[in-house]
Amino acid sequence: MVNSIRVCLIGAGRAAGVHANSLVNHIPAGRLAGIVDPMREALSATADQFGVDARFESLEAALDWGEFEAVAITTPTFTHSDLAVMAAVAGKHVFLEKPMAITLDECDEIIEAIQRNGVFLQLGFMRRFDPEFAAAYERIQMGEIGQPMMIKSLTHGPGLPPPWARDLRTSNGMLAEVNSHDWDCTRWLMGSNPERVYVEVANFKGKARGVDTENFYDNVLVNVRFESGGLGSISGICPCDYGYDARVEIVGERGIMQIGEMRGQAVVVCTNRDQGLVTPIYRTWPERFAWGYIREMEHFVNCIQTDTPPEVGGEDGRWAVAGVLAGTKSFLEERPVYVREVLEGEEV
Amino acid sequence: MVNSIRVCLIGAGRAAGVHANSLVNHIPAGRLAGIVDPMREALSATADQFGVDARFESLEAALDWGEFEAVAITTPTFTHSDLAVMAAVAGKHVFLEKPMAITLDECDEIIEAIQRNGVFLQLGFMRRFDPEFAAAYERIQMGEIGQPMMIKSLTHGPGLPPPWARDLRTSNGMLAEVNSHDWDCTRWLMGSNPERVYVEVANFKGKARGVDTENFYDNVLVNVRFESGGLGSISGICPCDYGYDARVEIVGERGIMQIGEMRGQAVVVCTNRDQGLVTPIYRTWPERFAWGYIREMEHFVNCIQTDTPPEVGGEDGRWAVAGVLAGTKSFLEERPVYVREVLEGEEV
Amino acid sequence: MVNSIRVCLIGAGRAAGVHANSLVNHIPAGRLAGIVDPMREALSATADQFGVDARFESLEAALDWGEFEAVAITTPTFTHSDLAVMAAVAGKHVFLEKPMAITLDECDEIIEAIQRNGVFLQLGFMRRFDPEFAAAYERIQMGEIGQPMMIKSLTHGPGLPPPWARDLRTSNGMLAEVNSHDWDCTRWLMGSNPERVYVEVANFKGKARGVDTENFYDNVLVNVRFESGGLGSISGICPCDYGYDARVEIVGERGIMQIGEMRGQAVVVCTNRDQGLVTPIYRTWPERFAWGYIREMEHFVNCIQTDTPPEVGGEDGRWAVAGVLAGTKSFLEERPVYVREVLEGEEV
Amino acid sequence: MVNSIRVCLIGAGRAAGVHANSLVNHIPAGRLAGIVDPMREALSATADQFGVDARFESLEAALDWGEFEAVAITTPTFTHSDLAVMAAVAGKHVFLEKPMAITLDECDEIIEAIQRNGVFLQLGFMRRFDPEFAAAYERIQMGEIGQPMMIKSLTHGPGLPPPWARDLRTSNGMLAEVNSHDWDCTRWLMGSNPERVYVEVANFKGKARGVDTENFYDNVLVNVRFESGGLGSISGICPCDYGYDARVEIVGERGIMQIGEMRGQAVVVCTNRDQGLVTPIYRTWPERFAWGYIREMEHFVNCIQTDTPPEVGGEDGRWAVAGVLAGTKSFLEERPVYVREVLEGEEV
Repeated sequence: MVNSIRVCLIGAGRAAGVHANSLVNHIPAGRLAGIVDPMREALSATADQFGVDARFESLEAALDWGEFEAVAITTPTFTHSDLAVMAAVAGKHVFLEKPMAITLDECDEIIEAIQRNGVFLQLGFMRRFDPEFAAAYERIQMGEIGQPMMIKSLTHGPGLPPPWARDLRTSNGMLAEVNSHDWDCTRWLMGSNPERVYVEVANFKGKARGVDTENFYDNVLVNVRFESGGLGSISGICPCDYGYDARVEIVGERGIMQIGEMRGQAVVVCTNRDQGLVTPIYRTWPERFAWGYIREMEHFVNCIQTDTPPEVGGEDGRWAVAGVLAGTKSFLEERPVYVREVLEGEEV
Repeated sequence: MVNSIRVCLIGAGRAAGVHANSLVNHIPAGRLAGIVDPMREALSATADQFGVDARFESLEAALDWGEFEAVAITTPTFTHSDLAVMAAVAGKHVFLEKPMAITLDECDEIIEAIQRNGVFLQLGFMRRFDPEFAAAYERIQMGEIGQPMMIKSLTHGPGLPPPWARDLRTSNGMLAEVNSHDWDCTRWLMGSNPERVYVEVANFKGKARGVDTENFYDNVLVNVRFESGGLGSISGICPCDYGYDARVEIVGERGIMQIGEMRGQAVVVCTNRDQGLVTPIYRTWPERFAWGYIREMEHFVNCIQTDTPPEVGGEDGRWAVAGVLAGTKSFLEERPVYVREVLEGEEV
Repeated sequence: MVNSIRVCLIGAGRAAGVHANSLVNHIPAGRLAGIVDPMREALSATADQFGVDARFESLEAALDWGEFEAVAITTPTFTHSDLAVMAAVAGKHVFLEKPMAITLDECDEIIEAIQRNGVFLQLGFMRRFDPEFAAAYERIQMGEIGQPMMIKSLTHGPGLPPPWARDLRTSNGMLAEVNSHDWDCTRWLMGSNPERVYVEVANFKGKARGVDTENFYDNVLVNVRFESGGLGSISGICPCDYGYDARVEIVGERGIMQIGEMRGQAVVVCTNRDQGLVTPIYRTWPERFAWGYIREMEHFVNCIQTDTPPEVGGEDGRWAVAGVLAGTKSFLEERPVYVREVLEGEEV
Repeated sequence: MVNSIRVCLIGAGRAAGVHANSLVNHIPAGRLAGIVDPMREALSATADQFGVDARFESLEAALDWGEFEAVAITTPTFTHSDLAVMAAVAGKHVFLEKPMAITLDECDEIIEAIQRNGVFLQLGFMRRFDPEFAAAYERIQMGEIGQPMMIKSLTHGPGLPPPWARDLRTSNGMLAEVNSHDWDCTRWLMGSNPERVYVEVANFKGKARGVDTENFYDNVLVNVRFESGGLGSISGICPCDYGYDARVEIVGERGIMQIGEMRGQAVVVCTNRDQGLVTPIYRTWPERFAWGYIREMEHFVNCIQTDTPPEVGGEDGRWAVAGVLAGTKSFLEERPVYVREVLEGEEV
């Protein structure tokens, strides 16, 4: 049997904890080999929690040691291209969290380094590995609802993102940090690339939460026209406070399909008829996509073991970044923007 | 066009209010002609609310006046047979609330008076007129789930019944006052009469609510074997406090069918992720069966207008009483009881 | 007690049948006095069905007769202003189906005629009278979900609209004929007027169904920015084939609320585990909004009886028309359009 | 870190495959060490599927080899006591599928062997490890619905059980093979032992499926009175054909709780308005309790690693067998049976 795959985590934050948990508790074929983080406290906390001895303050130091086949990068977006390229050059397979990068040039650098060094790249679009999303995709492919006409995808997150993730100078804001999954899923499920986008944003809670960053928004509503002629809506609200909410609705020529729902566990309680029935809601993204996170890492480990390219890679990550850039341009310039404007630098 | 049908309400309590509302606000073909109640306060309150001038302290007085075609009897069960017989003898059609009567002899007296006087009798089994129950019945008849094998029917009511309705000396207790609908619906949907019943009861809240009536119970669970060989479960809880709950689940040789649900309005709210999603529950029986109450009275009025016998009559009411009597005998004697024991006075 | 209100139906098509049914079968306080339609077959069919003797080929003829207090206008949109003005001038109260009119000038003519003649005008926005929408509105007003931030409202209709209703030369197309309710509901529930709209359209089924009208679309997706700063999405699909679908989701600063659902009757069946659970969907708009149609007509009748202005009137109808006109301008000119451009004829 | 726990599977049938999958694919802390089955084909198939080299035709042969810490017994019920005792005597921890055994004497033998040899016994009541059941239990313990008054638990399985499992001479029939989980869950969730049971059975499909075993039934309905005074209903249908269905509803003094539902994946589709909405149903028990099966084996492995007794053991298994025996006696003798009659051999 193939040896288990050793993965070194780059970043020791919350997403890192999710992947560490998958590798340690749920994937016999994988191993959590080491953890890298320049912030000592986060490093110790996560490494202690998962019983990992190999701890490093930099990717360079980890590569000097080198006892792993792959990295999983969960650091802030602006560090992605440098880290992914460095890992690829060192011959390590790369699991890269979304968004892929800040710019399309950075995406291209990553893709090129991956190809040149003959390693695999998998993007952290875990929704594709969620059993419900995966089954829905298959059923759409089989023609169950016919040619897709209109898709709606939303992601509402409970809390305020960290400062770097809500500032257009250090990230591409919520459209990227929260809605990357929607950009990917709508393209994947529609089977078509976005062609033109129009975006409206709003800022309802920023002031009360002490956010005075320029161009900050906590509500975003995107109108997409796909190359197929289909239409799409992406919405993001963060912080929404009420829970973690990620749902898709897609209408094809033959029917409608709803994927996911707000409701968490099927435990319904009523103790007060003036209040009504109460059912758990998904509170957080690790809870909503518990299987998705495990299955995406299983897929990554299995692809390395069997020398098979991952199903979701650089091209998918790049399209999501392109959507984000076109969307940001749209609300800043208050006009519909063709995605080719950002892909080719072309003005309409 | 046929004239509208004038109905005199006998009883001015809560059920009377429901029927008055149907006649006054929802059924152009019917008219609320008068109200009878010996209790002056209740009489005034209901008559004032619905703008009715013809008010009587007794059915005799109302019959002396006589300006109506039909009566709707909503008084306590032990008064049913006398009132129904008197109305029938006077040539009035009779709408009679459930339970039909206390004893099978009383049921027989009513049935005989109805037949002898050529008037119609409709029992207040409004679930048969609920759009969901009615559609379910039709679909079962069409064979959608095949031959029924097992049925479960529950009625949980929010509040403590009035003293007369929870005392075996003045009523047949919860099995009759709350679960009459379940006795009728299970027989109707299974398409078979109950053959043998076994009943367990419990008393959880009586003491705290100051009920010291002998044989009082607030939980009841009935096991039924039908003549068809099918099985059934009837459950009753009153007071359940959490809402008004009436649901049926039936499994046939080809599949399962669920009728009704706890959820009321399709308005789902989440404002607190630690609490979860909140949806209204049906709070009361007039709310749950709003259409059922209107449609059963429409049916009664329409039957009179078109000289057609009502779809649910004395025989149905009598079977429900028989089930109740066998069930009560079962828990008192702690053994399964054949319904024929109460129908024929036969001991096994 | 106040006399019952006599209503003359102008138009004998499908919407007319719905209102006729309300007046004849569900509203004791109202009466269906007469029906007007120049198309003899439709007139006979509807009048026969509801037992109405007073039949007219024109509103003029009906007014000559005059035995009614109010009209209910259900004819094609381009006839609305002439008919409504004529009825108002004759002193009749006006119930007017949506959309109010083709142009804002026509809306103004109607509003003026209504005011000058001291009669009432109620717009046919029945969703406001649906128990779920009405309860949701109240709860939002009470602050349950806080200040509204984002609303999504959809209407998907099963079948192809009639030729006049899908041609921009004789109507304002689907945005008006199908989505008028969404324009009204989003404004009502958000508590704010639309300020700027952006619209994408698509045509997926037109060709196969033999529609070659210029600018025909069967999918529409609207992005709205409200004066409050809130965002909105309106979507329309017609024909969607899969059922009648009308739902709203609204997120406020404190939480989320979902109003309505696809599911019709609470009857769930499973007869095949490879297929799964099957639940009825709402098939048509009269089925989905059964109570809404009854209650809006009750309200109209009751307003006349009590001399109280209806809750939804000319101003509401006019705003919906303004949204439609701005939306149509948006997809024709492929740019975001301020509603004030159509309200004031102002160019940005 | 503690070494991984090696488990030898006794039995290579369907339940064995579920546990093998957990150990091989989902539990890094456990290892599938070997498989035992006298039937060579089943042995080869399962061992090949999971890449296991150590294959044995008898437990004796496996114990001679001995390279494992624990066994997981999934063979027919009548073999349980011999196998469990033999493994315990050899110092192996025992994971034992339900039902624990055929008789209470066999249960006692197992419990005694386990205690004498200082090993652990865990019963295969995976529902206790299902996230929904586990959360429900905790919430009931915290008092959320108050003192439990009435519980209903059902298990409907899609297919006909194997001949040995439906014959009272080689098993205790469906009440044991299908409803063991319900006997355990009702006792666990009610926090009280069953005191008296009454059972009705029916045979609807036996003839058509060629089953002529004496006393065969495919529908069973149990009425339970608990020592606490609470009431319970257990129902079983097998084959039900429509899917795998396992749900619990429990009403306490303060409210109601529903645990589980028929619906599988949250993917809702409508392609035909005459049919309605379609949602997946759970097709099989491994699908419904996917997490439960993984988590129960994780618990077993973890208990061995940390030398902690499993949470569900011999006493729980024995109570379920007692319920089954009392229930069988009840329908054979057509009377309510006290559980103490089978526990103590006492006649009432």
